[in-house]
Formats: sequence, structure tokens, C-alpha cells
Amino acid sequence: MKTDSRLVLALDETNGEKALKVAESVSDMVDAIKINWPLVLSEGPQMITKLSEFSEVICDFKVADIPNTVKLIVENAVSRGASAVIVHAFTGDDSLRAAVEAAGDAEIFAVTEMSHPGAKMFTAQHAEEMARLGVECGAKGFIAPATRPDRIAAIRSVVGDLKILSPGVGAQGGKASDAIKAGATYAIVGRAIYGAEDPRAAAKIFLDDIKSI
Amino acid sequence: MKTDSRLVLALDETNGEKALKVAESVSDMVDAIKINWPLVLSEGPQMITKLSEFSEVICDFKVADIPNTVKLIVENAVSRGASAVIVHAFTGDDSLRAAVEAAGDAEIFAVTEMSHPGAKMFTAQHAEEMARLGVECGAKGFIAPATRPDRIAAIRSVVGDLKILSPGVGAQGGKASDAIKAGATYAIVGRAIYGAEDPRAAAKIFLDDIKSI
Repeated sequence: MKTDSRLVLALDETNGEKALKVAESVSDMVDAIKINWPLVLSEGPQMITKLSEFSEVICDFKVADIPNTVKLIVENAVSRGASAVIVHAFTGDDSLRAAVEAAGDAEIFAVTEMSHPGAKMFTAQHAEEMARLGVECGAKGFIAPATRPDRIAAIRSVVGDLKILSPGVGAQGGKASDAIKAGATYAIVGRAIYGAEDPRAAAKIFLDDIKSI
Repeated sequence: MKTDSRLVLALDETNGEKALKVAESVSDMVDAIKINWPLVLSEGPQMITKLSEFSEVICDFKVADIPNTVKLIVENAVSRGASAVIVHAFTGDDSLRAAVEAAGDAEIFAVTEMSHPGAKMFTAQHAEEMARLGVECGAKGFIAPATRPDRIAAIRSVVGDLKILSPGVGAQGGKASDAIKAGATYAIVGRAIYGAEDPRAAAKIFLDDIKSI
């Protein structure tokens, strides 16, 4: 995945027509578009291919299954045009390796911690350990919340020069430039762009913030 | 979900035509058919609706996301005809409650532990704790491996009279009657039925084993 604008659009829109319209309008401004299951469930898996005509596509499927199922999910997403697939690290080394192997030239990004309150209950305490495992297993990137630059820095210290993608910029309160200064490779912005009346103008604000560093 | 045969088919077939054929052939022999993302990715989300014409459908989506995304995934699956959706418990109370609320009259089943070797790394030690949380949050069932009847019994002691679904029967070595004797409500069989030359004859063997208790 290229690192030109360092901006990734989280296209959490479930209407296919609207999603494609937003994707087309900002495709030259973002390095990738990230989609999740709700769009696949509402509009079908062919959305991956359609969106890949505008931009690189990250399938944020938070895959968390046994190795063979992980393999089938990643293979299908990549065959439909995904450049990267996001998987959970908590399922352990065999599931992670299955993802990396199935991805081929595409990239696997690993979730080592999440930003919602419930995430603190069981896995937050394993975040660094999971990041180390992700490095060992061949993940090419990691997810760390833009709302917590200290966590981005902590994960950066573990993953060397691999990618870090930071969601939570914009509507959730994170600042793109802060995330990147803390060590993120990409700032991920959702609603503040796809929900804007003028998505290009909205994206421009985030790009300017990133360029201001 | 009814509890007549106590047999659930894990339809891990990614060819839609074959999947529907197997579903039709054994629909009167199983209490439900469980599907996973690979079938949705290969044949589209309309498979949920098509299969629900033959049997109750459990969407084994192992949902592991923030509450709002969990809500969107569960709502869509249920609106397409799913009777139940499987979610991970490790994402914590808010994500679990979001699933239960979004499910309405459909059921949420929670994964508290998995059977592949990598699962031991981060979450296995939290299994009982996650099961207790699932009960509190309104999950109607839990997943426990048929290959380890001691784990079924441990989860049974936590979840009272809620449902327990046990995968790993058949090809993976678990025995349906052993799982049910240990406390499982349903034995889940995959390949040994859908991969058989005669799926009805294969299902009959498991039904006979269950009836032998």
C-alpha cells in the first residue's frame, strides 16, 4: 500500500451507491479505502472489486477464527481485489500465519487492541505481546487508536518500521497530525469524510492537517 | 432455536449450489445449519435467506468489533433470516450487549474459547470469565469444543440452562454423544456430513449416536 497522503477513508456507509460515490470523489486524496462487513452484508462482496477500481481497498474484517476459515476469508477478499485484510491477533500464531500465507502479495494488518470501553476487559493487557507476535508472524501493519497517541507510540516501539494505521480521527476526537507524530503511518477518518456534505472538502482539511507536521 | 435432533450442520461449503443441495437433503434431520463468512464471500449474503427456507440458520460470523459495527452486522444477518449469530465474548460487555440488543428475537451465541492451538496464547485463560459475562449480557448460548468434554462441563457449570453448541464432532474427532453427555445442547458436525457422498446417511449415524444416550 502506498504512503502518499497518509490518509485512509473508513467507508462505513452501508448504501452501495452512496459508498461508490464517496469513493470516486476522494479516490485521488486517500491512500486506501477501508470497508467492513456491514457494507458486504448490505451490498454483497462484489463491493470489494467495485471499490478497488477507485482505490486500494482494506477489508477491515477483524477476522477471528480457526486457521482454515481465516485462510478462506483472506483468499476470497484478496481475489476480489483487496490490498489488505485486517485480522485479530488474539486468535494466536497459527491463525495469524494462515492469514499472512493466504494474503500472498496483499498485506495483513493485525488488531492488537481496540478503542471501545469493553476492549479493556480481556485483551488490552496483551497488546504489546500480540504486536510482537504479529511481527513474528509476518503482519505488515498494526491498528492503534488515534485517540490515544501514547498507545500508538507504544506499538511503534514494538513493530519497528512496519505500518501503523490509526482509526478514531475526526468524529471520535483523534487528530490526524497527532496520530502521525506519535508514530502512525496512516490516519483513518470515517464519518467526518463520508458523512460530510462535501467529502472532498472534508478530506482536504485532514490532508492539510497532516501536511502541517 | 428448537432442540429436537440436537444436531447442527456446519455447512462449511463455499459452493452455493452444493451448499443448498446438502441443506435441502438434511433439513428435516438437523435443528439448524451453521454458516460462516467464506460462504457469504463466495456466494453473497442472500445465502442466509436461501438457507433459512430449509432450516434455522446460525451465522457463525465470530463478530469481534466495536458495538456499532456489531449492531450493524447482527441486524443485517437477522433481517436476512438468521435465527442466531455467533459473536466473540473477548470484545467485552458493550459489544456483547450491542449484539443481544440488535438480535431482537434472534439469539446471540458467544465464543468463550476456541479449539485451535493458537487460541491458548491469549484468551483461553479467560474462558469462564467470558462465559459469566455472556450470561450477564444476555447471550442465549455458548460455544465449547466437543473434542474436550471437560471444557463443555466447565462452561455448563457457569451458564446454567442456557444452550451450549459443540463443534468438532466427526472429522475433528469429537463424539456427539460424549459432547451431549458432558452438557452440550447441540453437537455441531461439518465435513463428516456435508462432505459425505450421502449426507442423509451420514447425518443418520450422528443422530443414532445421539439417540443412544
